[in-house]
Amino acid sequence: MATRGRRPSGSGTREAIVEEAKRQFSARGYRDTTLRSVALGAGVDPKLVLHYFGSKQGLFGASVELPVPPELVLAQVFAGSRAEVPERAARTLVGLMEDERVRDTFIALLRAAVSEPEAAEVIRGILTTRMLLPVAEKVGGDRPELRAALMASQLVGIVMGRFVVGIPPLVASTTEELVAALTPVFRHYLEGDWVAATEIMRDALTER
Amino acid sequence: MATRGRRPSGSGTREAIVEEAKRQFSARGYRDTTLRSVALGAGVDPKLVLHYFGSKQGLFGASVELPVPPELVLAQVFAGSRAEVPERAARTLVGLMEDERVRDTFIALLRAAVSEPEAAEVIRGILTTRMLLPVAEKVGGDRPELRAALMASQLVGIVMGRFVVGIPPLVASTTEELVAALTPVFRHYLEGDWVAATEIMRDALTER
Repeated sequence: MATRGRRPSGSGTREAIVEEAKRQFSARGYRDTTLRSVALGAGVDPKLVLHYFGSKQGLFGASVELPVPPELVLAQVFAGSRAEVPERAARTLVGLMEDERVRDTFIALLRAAVSEPEAAEVIRGILTTRMLLPVAEKVGGDRPELRAALMASQLVGIVMGRFVVGIPPLVASTTEELVAALTPVFRHYLEGDWVAATEIMRDALTER
Repeated sequence: MATRGRRPSGSGTREAIVEEAKRQFSARGYRDTTLRSVALGAGVDPKLVLHYFGSKQGLFGASVELPVPPELVLAQVFAGSRAEVPERAARTLVGLMEDERVRDTFIALLRAAVSEPEAAEVIRGILTTRMLLPVAEKVGGDRPELRAALMASQLVGIVMGRFVVGIPPLVASTTEELVAALTPVFRHYLEGDWVAATEIMRDALTER
C-alpha cells in the first residue's frame, strides 16, 4: 500500500478527514475508530483532527450528517395535504433508505448506537428531534414526542429487518409493499386516539 | 482474582460453559468472545467446549436460548379467541421484554446481529420461524412470512428504542401505553388486506 504524504491544513482538509472518518466508523465501528487512526488514514496530524472536531464524538457527529438534510425530507412529507402526510412520510422514509449513501450512514449509526451511548444520542437527535417530531407536532395528536418515537421505532425496525438482520420477506419486499404496509401504521401513530384512551384508563385505575 | 481450578467434564459442566458464554457474549460482544476465552472463564479445557458445541456459532446458539420457550409464548398468544390475538401478541411480547433475563438475552442478540451474520441468523430463527410465523400462519392473511416479518420489525424497533437507543418517550411509556399503541399495528400486519392491494397494483402496472 502506498504511503500517503501529510496534507497541509486548510481548504479540503476538513472534508478529507470527514470522509476518512465515515469510512472508518462504518468499516471498524465506533469503538475501534480513534482520532489517531482517522488522522493516519487521512494523512494529517492528529492534532489537526482534534483542533477541527474537539473529540471523537464531535468527529462522529460531523461524519454522520445525512447526505440529505432533514429539512428537505420534511418539505417532501409536507408537500401535499394534511391527510396525505402518513403516506408521504412512509414513501419518503422508505425511499430515503433506497439511497445507498443514506442507508450506509443510517446502518453505521445503528451499529454504533447498540454499543455506544454517544452514537445513540446522535441517532436520537436526527430521527426524532429533527425529522419525526416536527411531523408529529404539525399533524399529530397529543404527546407528539411519543408519537414521533413510535414512528422512529418502526423505521428503525424496518431498517434492521431489511438491511441489517436480513429477514427474507423484508429484504425481498418492494417499496410499494412497504409503503402500503407502513402508511396505516404511521397514520395510527400520528392521529390515533390510543394515547388519550390509555390516560383515561390510568386515571380510572388511580381513582380506585 | 482467584484462579478457578479446572472442572471435570460431566454433569453440570455443559451448563457452566453456557452460563459463562452468556456472560461473555453479553459483556464483550460476539466478536471478542472466543471458545478459548469461554473455556478459561468456565475453568474447563477448550477442547471440551469444542466437543460440546462444535463451533463458536454453536456455542452462541446454545447461549441465547430464551429463558421462556417460544412454545409457551405462543400458548399465551392463542389462549383467547381469534379476535384477541393481536392484543394478546402485543401484551405477551411487551410483557416478555419487561423480564430482565429475556430482555438481556434479546439485546445481546441484537448487539451481535448488527455485526455478525451468524448471530443475525439466530435472531431470525427465534423471532420469525419460532414465534411470529406460527401466529401469522394461524390467524393472518396471505403471505404469512411478510406479515410475521413486519411484526418482528416493529418488535425489534421497540426494543431498540426502549432499551438500546433509549428514546425518552419509549423509555418512559407504560406497558399499557405500548399495548394500546401496538395492538392495532399488529392487527393491521396480521389481518390487513394491503398485501393483496399491492399485488393488484403491481399486476396493473405490469399489464400496462
